[in-house]
Amino acid sequence: MSFNTFGREFRFTTWGESHGPALGATVDGTPPGVPLDEGFIQQFLDRRRPGTSKHTTQRQEADQVRILSGVFEGRTTGTPIQLMIENTDQRSKDYGEIATSFRPGHADITYHLKYGLRDYRGGGRSSARETAARVAAGGVAQAVLAHLLPSLKITGYMVQMGAMHLDRARFDAGAIAGNPFFLPDATAVQAWSDYLDGIRKDQNSVGAVIEVLVQGCPPGLGAPVYAKLDTDLAAAMMSINAVKGVEIGEGMAAAMLTGTANADEMRMGNDGPIFLSNHAGGILGGISTGQDIVVRFSVKPTSSITTPRRTINRRGEEIDLITKGRHDPCVGIRAVPVAEAMAACVILDHLLMDRAQTGGSRGEIGPLSQS
Amino acid sequence: MSFNTFGREFRFTTWGESHGPALGATVDGTPPGVPLDEGFIQQFLDRRRPGTSKHTTQRQEADQVRILSGVFEGRTTGTPIQLMIENTDQRSKDYGEIATSFRPGHADITYHLKYGLRDYRGGGRSSARETAARVAAGGVAQAVLAHLLPSLKITGYMVQMGAMHLDRARFDAGAIAGNPFFLPDATAVQAWSDYLDGIRKDQNSVGAVIEVLVQGCPPGLGAPVYAKLDTDLAAAMMSINAVKGVEIGEGMAAAMLTGTANADEMRMGNDGPIFLSNHAGGILGGISTGQDIVVRFSVKPTSSITTPRRTINRRGEEIDLITKGRHDPCVGIRAVPVAEAMAACVILDHLLMDRAQTGGSRGEIGPLSQS
Amino acid sequence: MSFNTFGREFRFTTWGESHGPALGATVDGTPPGVPLDEGFIQQFLDRRRPGTSKHTTQRQEADQVRILSGVFEGRTTGTPIQLMIENTDQRSKDYGEIATSFRPGHADITYHLKYGLRDYRGGGRSSARETAARVAAGGVAQAVLAHLLPSLKITGYMVQMGAMHLDRARFDAGAIAGNPFFLPDATAVQAWSDYLDGIRKDQNSVGAVIEVLVQGCPPGLGAPVYAKLDTDLAAAMMSINAVKGVEIGEGMAAAMLTGTANADEMRMGNDGPIFLSNHAGGILGGISTGQDIVVRFSVKPTSSITTPRRTINRRGEEIDLITKGRHDPCVGIRAVPVAEAMAACVILDHLLMDRAQTGGSRGEIGPLSQS
Amino acid sequence: MSFNTFGREFRFTTWGESHGPALGATVDGTPPGVPLDEGFIQQFLDRRRPGTSKHTTQRQEADQVRILSGVFEGRTTGTPIQLMIENTDQRSKDYGEIATSFRPGHADITYHLKYGLRDYRGGGRSSARETAARVAAGGVAQAVLAHLLPSLKITGYMVQMGAMHLDRARFDAGAIAGNPFFLPDATAVQAWSDYLDGIRKDQNSVGAVIEVLVQGCPPGLGAPVYAKLDTDLAAAMMSINAVKGVEIGEGMAAAMLTGTANADEMRMGNDGPIFLSNHAGGILGGISTGQDIVVRFSVKPTSSITTPRRTINRRGEEIDLITKGRHDPCVGIRAVPVAEAMAACVILDHLLMDRAQTGGSRGEIGPLSQS
Repeated sequence: MSFNTFGREFRFTTWGESHGPALGATVDGTPPGVPLDEGFIQQFLDRRRPGTSKHTTQRQEADQVRILSGVFEGRTTGTPIQLMIENTDQRSKDYGEIATSFRPGHADITYHLKYGLRDYRGGGRSSARETAARVAAGGVAQAVLAHLLPSLKITGYMVQMGAMHLDRARFDAGAIAGNPFFLPDATAVQAWSDYLDGIRKDQNSVGAVIEVLVQGCPPGLGAPVYAKLDTDLAAAMMSINAVKGVEIGEGMAAAMLTGTANADEMRMGNDGPIFLSNHAGGILGGISTGQDIVVRFSVKPTSSITTPRRTINRRGEEIDLITKGRHDPCVGIRAVPVAEAMAACVILDHLLMDRAQTGGSRGEIGPLSQS
Repeated sequence: MSFNTFGREFRFTTWGESHGPALGATVDGTPPGVPLDEGFIQQFLDRRRPGTSKHTTQRQEADQVRILSGVFEGRTTGTPIQLMIENTDQRSKDYGEIATSFRPGHADITYHLKYGLRDYRGGGRSSARETAARVAAGGVAQAVLAHLLPSLKITGYMVQMGAMHLDRARFDAGAIAGNPFFLPDATAVQAWSDYLDGIRKDQNSVGAVIEVLVQGCPPGLGAPVYAKLDTDLAAAMMSINAVKGVEIGEGMAAAMLTGTANADEMRMGNDGPIFLSNHAGGILGGISTGQDIVVRFSVKPTSSITTPRRTINRRGEEIDLITKGRHDPCVGIRAVPVAEAMAACVILDHLLMDRAQTGGSRGEIGPLSQS
Repeated sequence: MSFNTFGREFRFTTWGESHGPALGATVDGTPPGVPLDEGFIQQFLDRRRPGTSKHTTQRQEADQVRILSGVFEGRTTGTPIQLMIENTDQRSKDYGEIATSFRPGHADITYHLKYGLRDYRGGGRSSARETAARVAAGGVAQAVLAHLLPSLKITGYMVQMGAMHLDRARFDAGAIAGNPFFLPDATAVQAWSDYLDGIRKDQNSVGAVIEVLVQGCPPGLGAPVYAKLDTDLAAAMMSINAVKGVEIGEGMAAAMLTGTANADEMRMGNDGPIFLSNHAGGILGGISTGQDIVVRFSVKPTSSITTPRRTINRRGEEIDLITKGRHDPCVGIRAVPVAEAMAACVILDHLLMDRAQTGGSRGEIGPLSQS
Repeated sequence: MSFNTFGREFRFTTWGESHGPALGATVDGTPPGVPLDEGFIQQFLDRRRPGTSKHTTQRQEADQVRILSGVFEGRTTGTPIQLMIENTDQRSKDYGEIATSFRPGHADITYHLKYGLRDYRGGGRSSARETAARVAAGGVAQAVLAHLLPSLKITGYMVQMGAMHLDRARFDAGAIAGNPFFLPDATAVQAWSDYLDGIRKDQNSVGAVIEVLVQGCPPGLGAPVYAKLDTDLAAAMMSINAVKGVEIGEGMAAAMLTGTANADEMRMGNDGPIFLSNHAGGILGGISTGQDIVVRFSVKPTSSITTPRRTINRRGEEIDLITKGRHDPCVGIRAVPVAEAMAACVILDHLLMDRAQTGGSRGEIGPLSQS
């Protein structure tokens, strides 16, 4: 069963544990002839890489990706692309106690109950380290999208971290790359930094909300009824470690709206329909409208904290546990490049699905449209 | 491509348009020997059926399900179960104008752009009428679950309708069946009814939030990393018409929590671990903990309203459109049995997946556990 | 699990038992805008229909197909197409004894062992009657192929029936439709008819070999390594009731050839490569060459015969069984339209897969080809 | 699209090219707790390894497998198992000419036409070297089968090589491991060896027929109608490079039989049904009977021969081509362990599918069976 595979046409299977020799992604379904090299993928991994600021884990991993197959003379061949990242800084001794204890909020207990055994080193398969493989696969998707849909742009950023909220009036996409929070407001970076320092010094952690904006997506991607574009985006985000909620457009707030307020009215522009608002988040009936696609998701606070928590161990003994090791005080931060990668994979998957079913043709709107 | 199929082991494919001769679900993967008849499935359809109160569409559909295959002498045979519901009250003349116009908030324009043509009668395939087929498939899942997991209980109810919120202190599961809102608080029914009357008289509609509670789910269902139980529940809910947000446990509010507050601490009980809280909503690392599973989702307000909205038609002309026809002022209401059906299908799917991979065995916790 | 689904992009799920109220196919993945009506599909069903000559079962089934969804105003909409065939001539009383006895050569015993129960009437789900649903699905595939690949032609015919062999020197495609054996040699029909009469009078049955020829298939369909065109064609044929062997091109005889004899040498023609022979059967490395695709398969003799055979019943008693009922003395005959249907589905499936991955573009051969 | 994935519950995706840095298999769906190490898998790879006799290619590859994930402390964890084999003896210079020329009988031309480019070194992805990854994945399947079905035994052997046929009266399973032909008749080894020497000295190659015997398979594995055990075995074998025909039980010869001759009659034994013959090859209606499963397939002669053949190149020029390099005069020989691996994967896949659907329960035969 495809427990570790994501996607339909563009599929990737991730493999590897946090402290095993390597991890990676097996990518299948890539169109042939797309320019691709390790450097292109590496730029995405570098954005997710641990140890780059005081706000993320101090584990030092180069996260160097190797392409082992599927690329020849700088282009994809259409055969599977194997992406491997070797682990180098595994300090497994940090993880002695969790071999037999169940950290609250972690998958330790559920893996144990399900499988009867687990690779406990650093969380093994359930570690957020798995997301490095997603980012690598997303790099392949980004390369294909750059080839097939050069106008497409995927941008992730934080909109909330605990009590801190993005001031939407100050939204500045240009600021995102310049701070460790992927925050689109340079003026708020210091306050967010101070806030997170306080959290960390309190031996605590905090949750976050990330938003992904997809611009330049053509209309017509998505499919009824169980392969909706929004369904797939929601599944993509919910599959990321620690995610607890997903919203498209108005999201949960849609419950408070009336039909008159929520309607995205339309006028006719020179190049096609113009929507006067975007409550829908760019997707109607599971299919893209051509507007910006807006996806948001929440990430729970890091469960690994140095404040003791009550728990049990395999022998059924009640204990108090402090989770040592090197952990992010806000795992939401590094979820930003992961979410962009997942969005890229979903959009590409639907682009290829659409090529299969409709051949990419589109219904016409205009005076000559048959009616 | 499986655009219309849901599930892995327990799979159903829905088919049919709102105003075609019939609609239904083709269900595959059902275990053999499960008692099943049309009456059992019918009870679920009756809860979703239109025309049963002034708060839902006045379209009169008996929604009588017929089992055309896969059941013999009152038991499932393990072969595909074809469930057919004939349409009887198609007043297609109500839908003349939308043949060429695009209703704001509907899939009309995206279906047109993608496919170049569409069955416009009543929304065709994108109509919420498709959810009758889901409820029928869910009835099969409920029958199998009653056979394999008799302790399992799935309960859906509304927690918000526009400005009206459930008072959680008054939660009374016994009240749900006794009012048209699936509201677990009998004392609030009149106020909700008056509120929705006001919305309807204003020629408007309103959104909602539904919660689904799964009780008695054993630990160990779910799978890492791309077949997580929460991922699949999120996808299931997001695939329902008009859904814009999905939450597991704390949901979007997890962003505001700290790690100390969010930790679901554990103690040891006589029968296994006891969790002291359930911020996680019963799922850790994608796998059920044995606690209650809590899923919530928002439904946008019905897009079909009789207040005129600005839009365009196929010829590219700008028009004002009133959506006539018989519509629910709050489509969220009838989403309750649909969500229960989807939850049943997801839980059963994972139960069968787990049988495949682990054979249903579980890791032990206790003094004799090897460590 | 998709136990009853065939295909990837163009998928159909068949449902229904031999003596249930109806059977059919749920077809998903059809491109939109393809002209389709019941009459088009009916022509294929009429070729497979029982009761049309003395050489097939005397069960009288009109096999009238109804399209319940997915077609609007004469064209496919891209949504699921439900095809239903009602059963009308179920003489279930013929099948009393097999309720508890296991017919040798039938699936009776294996269904019983696997499922613990079965719809025994006429073989239930394991009846060759299921192939009517395949032929209906194949009709949809043929309509799409006629739209997208009008030059494609799929022709099935018998090449062997027991001791009777087609004389290839007399091959005449024009003769196929004019005799009950789908035999491409009008001069041999009388001899085949006499032979089969003899078999039937002996209360016996006989096996057959069918060949399917696909002409006009473009190069480039198929995919390495586990979605090869020949793999999928082999699986398609082997999934038909009673099939025991499948061959592509030289088939089993390839074992006797040397490399020099087997090489399909090439010369350059005005429009591209010309192959000087076709030992490969039109497929190299799992991908079509543009030559004729040649698939053959054997069908075992009908297991239902009126000569008594030794067997057992559910109580474990040893009995002698005569299979009454209305059976084909050579089930291979009616496998011809079934095989054509399956071939059409496979070719279309790969055409859509190829659109997804390569967009349909092809590598060039010629003086300007980059090298 | 899963172009490179095999299986449903037990799935593997192979990756890698003949002359890339490495190749391997990503295996998903393995039950947890199964003892597994590299040595266990290596024994299967060693049987397929090139360079071990004068009758196979002289390419020297150690084919050392590394397990990169999914195994912890000697047992499977239920997470993906990544198997990597590094290439060490890539003599790419041997392959200069085929960069631009199309070898007759090879996938060169079809890959070029489909993808527009290809990794031509040693055939790239279409090289039989891919089968090393299958054998590695098969080793995992064998480990799981040894754990879950210890009585199961899978044995492959050659029954024909060109003009040489196995004398079935001399069948001796004990002889298979002792000769380079996997021939179950020690007395014929010298003659086969002399025959193949002659073929090689003639700068030629020859085809073969391999048979795989599965003993100890329980009844009830397989599923109707499109996931039949025989369908999946046929697809598995047909997906192996150079295979042109597949047979189950009587295979193509079933066409010559009558119903009386072909019936596998039954008597009742102490432990259940006893079949008096096995024309069916152990599978009825797609489901195993409990008898020996018998699968046969033909392999065409190696297309790479040093006798010049007429062909074309990318510029469309007509040339004569000699395929240099190190090639097997009979590729069928090394297909034996590959076929065993594929059979192991199919059997395990169906065992897990059966656990999902029926929970492994079986229908009863005996005096107390309800009837």
